[in-house]
Amino acid sequence: MDTTQSGLATAPLTDEELARIDAYWRAANYLTVGQIYLLDNPLLREPLRPEHIKPRLLGHWGTSPGLSLIYAHLNRCIAARDLDMIFVTGPGHGGPAIVANTWLEGTYPELHPSVNHSEEGMKRLFRQFSFPGGIPSHVAAEVPGSIHEGGELGYALSHAYGAAFDNPELTVACVIGDGEAETGPMAGSWFSNVFLNPVTDGTVLPILHLNGYKIANPTIFARISDEDRMSFFRGVGYEPFLVEGGDPASVHQQLAAALDACFDRIAEIRADARRNVNGKPVRPRWPMIVLRTPKGWTGPDEVDGVPVEGTWRAHQVPLAAVRSNPEHLAMLEEWMRSYRPEELFDAMGGPAPELLGLHPQGARRMSANPHANGGLLLRDLVLPDYRDYGLAIEGHGRTTGEATRVLGKWIRDVISANPDRFRLFGPDEVASNRLDAAFETTDRQWTAEILPTDEHQAPHGRVMEALSEHLCEGWLEGYLLTGRHGLFTSYEAFIHIVDSMFNQHAKWLDSLSKIPWRQPIASLNYLLSSHVWRQDHNGFSHQDPGFIDHVMNKKADIVRVYLPPDANTLLSTMDHCLRGRQYVNVVVAGKQPSLQYTSMDEAVRHCERGLGIWEWASTDDGQSPDVVLACAGDAPTLEVLAAADLLRQALPRLKVRVVNVVDLMRLQPDTEHPHGLGDRQFDTIFTADKPVLFAFHGYPMLIHRLTYRRTNHDNIHVRGYKEEGTTTTPFDMVVLNDLDRYRLVMDVIDRVPGLGQNAAGLRQRMVDARHAAREHTRTHGEDLPAVAEWQWPH
Amino acid sequence: MDTTQSGLATAPLTDEELARIDAYWRAANYLTVGQIYLLDNPLLREPLRPEHIKPRLLGHWGTSPGLSLIYAHLNRCIAARDLDMIFVTGPGHGGPAIVANTWLEGTYPELHPSVNHSEEGMKRLFRQFSFPGGIPSHVAAEVPGSIHEGGELGYALSHAYGAAFDNPELTVACVIGDGEAETGPMAGSWFSNVFLNPVTDGTVLPILHLNGYKIANPTIFARISDEDRMSFFRGVGYEPFLVEGGDPASVHQQLAAALDACFDRIAEIRADARRNVNGKPVRPRWPMIVLRTPKGWTGPDEVDGVPVEGTWRAHQVPLAAVRSNPEHLAMLEEWMRSYRPEELFDAMGGPAPELLGLHPQGARRMSANPHANGGLLLRDLVLPDYRDYGLAIEGHGRTTGEATRVLGKWIRDVISANPDRFRLFGPDEVASNRLDAAFETTDRQWTAEILPTDEHQAPHGRVMEALSEHLCEGWLEGYLLTGRHGLFTSYEAFIHIVDSMFNQHAKWLDSLSKIPWRQPIASLNYLLSSHVWRQDHNGFSHQDPGFIDHVMNKKADIVRVYLPPDANTLLSTMDHCLRGRQYVNVVVAGKQPSLQYTSMDEAVRHCERGLGIWEWASTDDGQSPDVVLACAGDAPTLEVLAAADLLRQALPRLKVRVVNVVDLMRLQPDTEHPHGLGDRQFDTIFTADKPVLFAFHGYPMLIHRLTYRRTNHDNIHVRGYKEEGTTTTPFDMVVLNDLDRYRLVMDVIDRVPGLGQNAAGLRQRMVDARHAAREHTRTHGEDLPAVAEWQWPH
Repeated sequence: MDTTQSGLATAPLTDEELARIDAYWRAANYLTVGQIYLLDNPLLREPLRPEHIKPRLLGHWGTSPGLSLIYAHLNRCIAARDLDMIFVTGPGHGGPAIVANTWLEGTYPELHPSVNHSEEGMKRLFRQFSFPGGIPSHVAAEVPGSIHEGGELGYALSHAYGAAFDNPELTVACVIGDGEAETGPMAGSWFSNVFLNPVTDGTVLPILHLNGYKIANPTIFARISDEDRMSFFRGVGYEPFLVEGGDPASVHQQLAAALDACFDRIAEIRADARRNVNGKPVRPRWPMIVLRTPKGWTGPDEVDGVPVEGTWRAHQVPLAAVRSNPEHLAMLEEWMRSYRPEELFDAMGGPAPELLGLHPQGARRMSANPHANGGLLLRDLVLPDYRDYGLAIEGHGRTTGEATRVLGKWIRDVISANPDRFRLFGPDEVASNRLDAAFETTDRQWTAEILPTDEHQAPHGRVMEALSEHLCEGWLEGYLLTGRHGLFTSYEAFIHIVDSMFNQHAKWLDSLSKIPWRQPIASLNYLLSSHVWRQDHNGFSHQDPGFIDHVMNKKADIVRVYLPPDANTLLSTMDHCLRGRQYVNVVVAGKQPSLQYTSMDEAVRHCERGLGIWEWASTDDGQSPDVVLACAGDAPTLEVLAAADLLRQALPRLKVRVVNVVDLMRLQPDTEHPHGLGDRQFDTIFTADKPVLFAFHGYPMLIHRLTYRRTNHDNIHVRGYKEEGTTTTPFDMVVLNDLDRYRLVMDVIDRVPGLGQNAAGLRQRMVDARHAAREHTRTHGEDLPAVAEWQWPH
Repeated sequence: MDTTQSGLATAPLTDEELARIDAYWRAANYLTVGQIYLLDNPLLREPLRPEHIKPRLLGHWGTSPGLSLIYAHLNRCIAARDLDMIFVTGPGHGGPAIVANTWLEGTYPELHPSVNHSEEGMKRLFRQFSFPGGIPSHVAAEVPGSIHEGGELGYALSHAYGAAFDNPELTVACVIGDGEAETGPMAGSWFSNVFLNPVTDGTVLPILHLNGYKIANPTIFARISDEDRMSFFRGVGYEPFLVEGGDPASVHQQLAAALDACFDRIAEIRADARRNVNGKPVRPRWPMIVLRTPKGWTGPDEVDGVPVEGTWRAHQVPLAAVRSNPEHLAMLEEWMRSYRPEELFDAMGGPAPELLGLHPQGARRMSANPHANGGLLLRDLVLPDYRDYGLAIEGHGRTTGEATRVLGKWIRDVISANPDRFRLFGPDEVASNRLDAAFETTDRQWTAEILPTDEHQAPHGRVMEALSEHLCEGWLEGYLLTGRHGLFTSYEAFIHIVDSMFNQHAKWLDSLSKIPWRQPIASLNYLLSSHVWRQDHNGFSHQDPGFIDHVMNKKADIVRVYLPPDANTLLSTMDHCLRGRQYVNVVVAGKQPSLQYTSMDEAVRHCERGLGIWEWASTDDGQSPDVVLACAGDAPTLEVLAAADLLRQALPRLKVRVVNVVDLMRLQPDTEHPHGLGDRQFDTIFTADKPVLFAFHGYPMLIHRLTYRRTNHDNIHVRGYKEEGTTTTPFDMVVLNDLDRYRLVMDVIDRVPGLGQNAAGLRQRMVDARHAAREHTRTHGEDLPAVAEWQWPH
């Protein structure tokens, strides 16, 4: 066999193989064009007429032929080498191409029997695409074999790596559009190879599809020099193989040779690494492919006098006026017939027998690989009994503990008990968020250089830390979508970095739940520590509790938000979250030493209810209170209790009820959220007519948003974060935002009528105490001991 | 002069120069340590005692010596070459280093006379840092010379490029931490050099500060091979100069040589390009520096038996127990004395005279450069009269127009009239969002290869398009912060990508407004088109109207949200936004052909009021209505008017009031937002007791959030986006979300009492019409003509 200078075979395919793969590709292209354009006459048994054409032409042709080319060639390799492979479609707007391939290899008809291998089935295939009541235009959850929505760009490669972790036999082929390659999240994903262990993880094969244009602009990667482009990919640690051209036969041969070289190389890297499992860490130079072909390849060359193939004009629908312009209609027919459908489909309308020989069979088909329907492979986590990890408390509000540090011990044992299906992800904040007990049992996975001074850095480990929230989120999503479990821990303010990734994942979960053949996957769990109230080394720029607001715009049956006030409630909450399916759970909890309020038993009961009256802190004796002090979050809980203490001492006859909220969704009516409290229950706890002072962890508006339909809403007064803050002490932070104990007592006095002269005196004392606390802080640089060391009295 | 193999001088600094720059660096380091630790005894005139130490030690030492090293060396170059330069501190948590330098060069004392060059001034400098009532720990707006907050990481380089655009004499030195370099947005910023024109723009000098660690992990860039690292930077188009070591004298000489080479190269590139202004596009290979020095350099080598300098342990405060541990206290004193303060400061406590000779003078000081206080340089835009661009309408709701296309013509002329201070930014959506009239006067700026088939691609242009929302946002922020104007146009759903960047900018504006010496800058303007209701080629993954919810968590005096329903109101709104200062304006407007409701004069008046009754569409004759139909956004406005038309025909005696809202902030009480309506005004428009059906562009909850304090809130029923959608027709989208005209009529019937038998019949007709419309869409793939072509009747 001849080889090129770079050592690749020049013509690895026999004439017959070449003909077959080209036919397969033409079939996929034909089916793609058909989906975009046709309502009827799918096999072109008669000349195309306007009524065969869809009234609204929607879809993206430009990227589609390249996707089908890659898909067909991967099929050849899977069949030849019995590879376990899935396909991540970065240019997911090329939906019709992927759907065409899943139809050709038979998965689509298996899942949707009416869209079968027949003329009628093909007609349905065409009609349903981007059609009301049909399927979306993108590679969505509805597309078999997909774990990646054709939505927002940037996450294909991080999803692919997430899928590869802990799947040592799996290869994830990941097509990346050259448009997507410009996005920040994508640009930051190349180095994922630093975090992939060739012994215990699978492989990602990135395929940069360089088709030259995004929507109306050329792409950066297409317009820099070959030398710079290759230099870039070597810089990020890959061995790039270039395939380029516009002549199908040549590109088929080149691509086949490059893929053969890549899979040989991958096999070699795996074998080498696995022979030498106790050796030094090694970051292999994994192969990748740069595929340069024309945008809209094989489509119309020129339309209305301007070039289309190979330009940005091929991005969506190259012939736009097919229904009204006979010339366009003729061009469409010519275009479709150029694929020679008579050779590709049998008399019934199914793929010709020669085509059926190309693709792999059964679960080896990328569209039927169970990794891409992760719920099929999902196994429950083995969870140690969290109650054994509880913090013993001596009285309510009298013991100090660090909630996340207590949780860390349980997480450590969750990691130990699930060595193949649970990982902890974070942007270098696992230790900072005090979950470092994890390092008693595992390390941070890292295959680049390790120095003797490093700690807990190893080629294999269950902790994934890169300074990129995008990468952590993308990896975790890919890991979950392929049937595993995980936890993402991060700073509260900066989790907004992945707002939009959360959106895409939540929408995926929503779609997934409506598709009968998709199996439920594990919940996406966020643990947000280093929260707004305790940014000691940082300040204003690190203070934003709004992620929970953002999350709540998504469907109620998907999102859950928890604010456990102490260590034991955090344990109970996280146990619940790690058992979940199909949710996004957001847990906000503190890492700093702070008072503990609940025994383990109390925590279990409190979390089961989601919110409840803390009788030990209340003075209403189970009767109707004069005022309700409600709180959600650790810092607000502390201030509410300190306020309750002040009120108890100064106004002993005032009946105060203290309510703590762990599960924020309980505040909504049960008609709005499955966790919602019925109105009667809500009124029993919050009363129908008494003042409610609600000290809240986040922006006050969220509590109003959740409770505006409640009987007593007009009496609910919320204190929370109002964008005041800087580098200062913990108590100064709550004072700056009017959430402090003194302010809360003043609020009570201002809202409960008839408290008399005592209250007026107390109010003035509160004003003075507040002033004194601020003065002390400004003078001494720390909080007044009486404030900082306050405990709930015996 | 000797040179190295790479042609750099081996010892460009004379002994005297070396001594002076080292002294300057030592002084900055001394002042940095002092800020982190000391309350008193700033010049160490007596041995350190615990009471000289701050009670809470907060700040980041690790990156600080590197920052000061770079700052000192840049000062030398500025002075020697009379450079116009500003400094962007990517590792902005190294706040005390930058503050130290601004104090040394005198800017800080000029702006804060009490923190002057005296022992008392130095004491204040130390005490205020990270101290309650003092200054934040990060490089914040409070730091002279900064345009970049030390908050969330990832945006330093895009800010730097934004500052360089249209400032041909400016150089922006941009230090990038190797931690920050892992983030997606940063990784995607390197290619900004494709968009920088060496003739009309300034220069960015990236300096990768490779100090090896982020918080507790090594960094990727520090642990890959030298060859890969250099290959990466060549791949993204730079010429990297490596400076490395731990011996100060050697590093001083290397860095001086590298900077000399960089500034020579920059001068050469500029001169070449400017000699050849009509030549072919050229993307020069700009220089950059890779500076590898130990983290926490010159700090404690080892503490409590473990290595600190050169490890992640140097990240924050290397000696943590100084107040309580005498050994730590002694080490601190030894550390501080190692800088030989007696040589660095005069008897009064000011910098020694030798130091004052190093830094540049006046506005050449990076901390006093007016570009870094952009409001100083801000000039108003020359705005053509937008009323001349209005769309002539023939009756309300009877003319069809594309709002953004009409706006595009005005934007075109704004561009022409402001060739030096206005740019349009977008992720390849300027044409797609129908602002392509801009290309009649300008092009997309692009210095990489341009092919004959490209259109509107040129080395110089006012349109900046990269497929990265992060890059667009970062560039625009940098452009605004240095005193210019701009507009960011993007898809509504994907603007969430920059949620967190918006947060940081909004917080910066908030801080900026409280600092007397900072001048106001131009508003940050978003135009969100391709909105949730019209995702024709896309679907569910592209539908999210929640950015406006996100924005509204920031301070009311900063954020503005507008929903102009047609072309003329959009023109009026954008004119208003482009005149603004210190706001973030979010404008949501459609790009698709749709009905026009207001003449230019009506649009001006309607936008002035922000919301108002559309009498032409109402049947209440200025009296008390039976029901209010309110709307905000173009799609909801269409449905409300069509509903009003149905009601008018079927129930002619029903008094319907139609209210349209452009300025969403008008809905809030005037106590909550400066644009808010007083309660009496609100009640006059929305009534105190009649049903209000509000058809809203976004998530319904936002309207409740804005109006929950209003008298009539219990009667406000909102329809909006509720996470239902796919690739479908426009009318099917509103039906899926219960926002359609038929549903609104049903809502009216269900909520207005006493409508009688006629209404019951109408309700059934609505149910039938809705069903018929859906059936038609599902059968024919397009909306019923009667729905799609509906117009307001004569």
